[in-house]
Amino acid sequence: MSNYKSLKQEAYECNMQLQELGLVIFTFGNASVVDRQRQVFAIKPSGVSYGTLNATDMVVVDFENNVVEGELRPSSDTKTHAVLYSQWDAIGGIVHTHSTYATAWAQAQCDIPILGTTHADHLAFDIPCAPVMDDQLIKDDYEVSTGYQIINALKDKNLSYREVEMILVGGHAPFTWGKTGEKAVYNSAVLEEIAKMAAITKGINEEAPRLKESLIKKHFQRKHGDGAYYGQK
Amino acid sequence: MSNYKSLKQEAYECNMQLQELGLVIFTFGNASVVDRQRQVFAIKPSGVSYGTLNATDMVVVDFENNVVEGELRPSSDTKTHAVLYSQWDAIGGIVHTHSTYATAWAQAQCDIPILGTTHADHLAFDIPCAPVMDDQLIKDDYEVSTGYQIINALKDKNLSYREVEMILVGGHAPFTWGKTGEKAVYNSAVLEEIAKMAAITKGINEEAPRLKESLIKKHFQRKHGDGAYYGQK
Amino acid sequence: MSNYKSLKQEAYECNMQLQELGLVIFTFGNASVVDRQRQVFAIKPSGVSYGTLNATDMVVVDFENNVVEGELRPSSDTKTHAVLYSQWDAIGGIVHTHSTYATAWAQAQCDIPILGTTHADHLAFDIPCAPVMDDQLIKDDYEVSTGYQIINALKDKNLSYREVEMILVGGHAPFTWGKTGEKAVYNSAVLEEIAKMAAITKGINEEAPRLKESLIKKHFQRKHGDGAYYGQK
Amino acid sequence: MSNYKSLKQEAYECNMQLQELGLVIFTFGNASVVDRQRQVFAIKPSGVSYGTLNATDMVVVDFENNVVEGELRPSSDTKTHAVLYSQWDAIGGIVHTHSTYATAWAQAQCDIPILGTTHADHLAFDIPCAPVMDDQLIKDDYEVSTGYQIINALKDKNLSYREVEMILVGGHAPFTWGKTGEKAVYNSAVLEEIAKMAAITKGINEEAPRLKESLIKKHFQRKHGDGAYYGQK
Repeated sequence: MSNYKSLKQEAYECNMQLQELGLVIFTFGNASVVDRQRQVFAIKPSGVSYGTLNATDMVVVDFENNVVEGELRPSSDTKTHAVLYSQWDAIGGIVHTHSTYATAWAQAQCDIPILGTTHADHLAFDIPCAPVMDDQLIKDDYEVSTGYQIINALKDKNLSYREVEMILVGGHAPFTWGKTGEKAVYNSAVLEEIAKMAAITKGINEEAPRLKESLIKKHFQRKHGDGAYYGQK
Repeated sequence: MSNYKSLKQEAYECNMQLQELGLVIFTFGNASVVDRQRQVFAIKPSGVSYGTLNATDMVVVDFENNVVEGELRPSSDTKTHAVLYSQWDAIGGIVHTHSTYATAWAQAQCDIPILGTTHADHLAFDIPCAPVMDDQLIKDDYEVSTGYQIINALKDKNLSYREVEMILVGGHAPFTWGKTGEKAVYNSAVLEEIAKMAAITKGINEEAPRLKESLIKKHFQRKHGDGAYYGQK
Repeated sequence: MSNYKSLKQEAYECNMQLQELGLVIFTFGNASVVDRQRQVFAIKPSGVSYGTLNATDMVVVDFENNVVEGELRPSSDTKTHAVLYSQWDAIGGIVHTHSTYATAWAQAQCDIPILGTTHADHLAFDIPCAPVMDDQLIKDDYEVSTGYQIINALKDKNLSYREVEMILVGGHAPFTWGKTGEKAVYNSAVLEEIAKMAAITKGINEEAPRLKESLIKKHFQRKHGDGAYYGQK
Repeated sequence: MSNYKSLKQEAYECNMQLQELGLVIFTFGNASVVDRQRQVFAIKPSGVSYGTLNATDMVVVDFENNVVEGELRPSSDTKTHAVLYSQWDAIGGIVHTHSTYATAWAQAQCDIPILGTTHADHLAFDIPCAPVMDDQLIKDDYEVSTGYQIINALKDKNLSYREVEMILVGGHAPFTWGKTGEKAVYNSAVLEEIAKMAAITKGINEEAPRLKESLIKKHFQRKHGDGAYYGQK
């Protein structure tokens, strides 16, 4: 019997949602969900296709990257997840995809500028693109460094992971997170749509202006501020 | 028992069609249908996902934004709908989406030029993009102001809401309307297709000319003019 | 009892295929099939949605545009079909759509250059874009003129309708034809794919060269020439 | 009874996957699988639609292009497959498609630059575009020459077919291969996604830089190198 049955089930469902939402093909991408009390997270096994994935295949790993339960090798990006869980104590889930448009922005090595309210409904800042890592970091412990690259990119821009739940890793692809695994999945889908809209917008009008601050604030606040009136109480 | 059962059912079906037509994801967008005699409209509840929506969830609201029936909070855009219903007495339904291409044009802050007969079959003018609102209006009563921003944008261009049943709100996203909710939904789908075609056209030929007036008139008239011969009698 | 049951059935199936192939939405587009012996063709009724269409709804029309059988009004583009059937005696079916990419090229008012073998497998020439009509022709008998505009555009480029089974009407949308209705439908789908590939190709490399003549000839001949060896005998 | 039942079944499944993955429409494209012991391969029959294809339709051909079993004519590209199988003894399957974005790059006559880790996860080089063939070769034995065009393009760039399992043929479309038919199909899908991402990336930032060598090496090695730790043991 598993000691982590519900955790693994939750991680499984998050991974399967990525496929249903059209955010992954084959084995591209992975989702994890954390159990804060036991300081472990369940993550997709490495290189297993979404078509054949089962809840029991999920691998439970601690923050030092030791496999606690599971017969399969965890995702090759596991160390990145571990760094983020250990550094950011308010997140409950992490998602990594190679979704088409978000990855294109990561490859373009550009922040996604905030061009409209669809973006502002979710975050009040440009979606940052972390710079490509130094050669030494790539050689040393690449996946750990990816975690710190993400953390430092937010710090450098003076952003909190609570306010900005998505990032592009330059030359690579997006990572998203959230209070739950479900929210992290949602953020991946939203990011892909924002990335697509922004690419098309720039194609229509290369000079499309950044959304003005008053409108950014309004849309973000009505959904997430103290007096938020979007959604149900 | 509901006093507005058929109104809510109609609003529900319009909202669900938005999802079927690929015009909304998650909770983006909302449709409403008005009952002119009773001076109320039924609208989607705020922040409820299309996947879990029921007809009984629809919220009935009067033109002063009072909830007349319903347990849920109405859409955060309700006040915009109320303004349009109270100012334009010939419309029966309103739809707001963040559909990808129409939103990209709104973000580009450009009118969609009339480039072909697909567009002219539906309206004889460029699809206007209302300018981004002044800061004071954004702070004061944003959703009410959005309604007036739409109304004024049409006025400024000397357009009637009976002739032009769709608009982009600059930096935000499209609104459409029509004699019925079903027509408003149809207009949203048509707008998205026109927006997509126009973006691709400009990508192929940045100098693609506006359609000539004689052809605009011909296509619009054969479908909507006095001697219209498109469709069934 | 209908005297044209199988003709109407065939026209119906062609129309329905347009929807299945993603070439039409709502009421955009129409397909017809001709009976050469009886000098009539069956065509989609005007403005009827594909979702509610029945085989019995098809309208049978002669080459002078008289309705021979059917209770509904025929497509508003019927006269264009009639002109083409009366002028080109080797065609068996005609299709008109507003498919996204082909329509974008028509709006761009550009021929689709032959950029690759996908194109050359089907025709050995650029896909012509007929110029926008003169004002007088638009006013006089627009749909008849559209037929002659198509015929003249081919003539001006010294092309035969047997070799080139597709055209763009500038500012409007594509028409395709073929020996059968099924072939005309196939040509519409192929045109849309060629149009999409060409738009993306130009986006990647604005200077992408026209395919060289030797390769055009080779691909067209191996499929359609005297010594064709593509397909089954 | 067939002597090649399982070979034909495998080739059939590979061909059908092309359709399921959205890489082919109508009769565009073909997959083959080789039996190294018997020096034959099973390939799709020419011009037969995926919708009506059966496993028993597969044609078994030897490396001199003689039909060994099957009633139908083999794919018109059979000679290209035969050249590759006879020259490259480690491949088990070959796929040719006209998938949209990969074909657009072939038409653009550009290598697909390695812009991100999605690409580097699969190969450590730009995806080469073989030049358009000389006129004489096109006239002589076009499909055989296509095979040598592919082989020479790799040689000219000092690439091994074991490291680079995909190529664009300039003005034509992609070919992919692999140790098995299934891998060749997988490579076709991956190529299409990489091609799409690269086209969008260049649209966002024309100056998007090539991925740095250290990161290319890292991603390729962690999946395919001696100390690979991606996937299961």
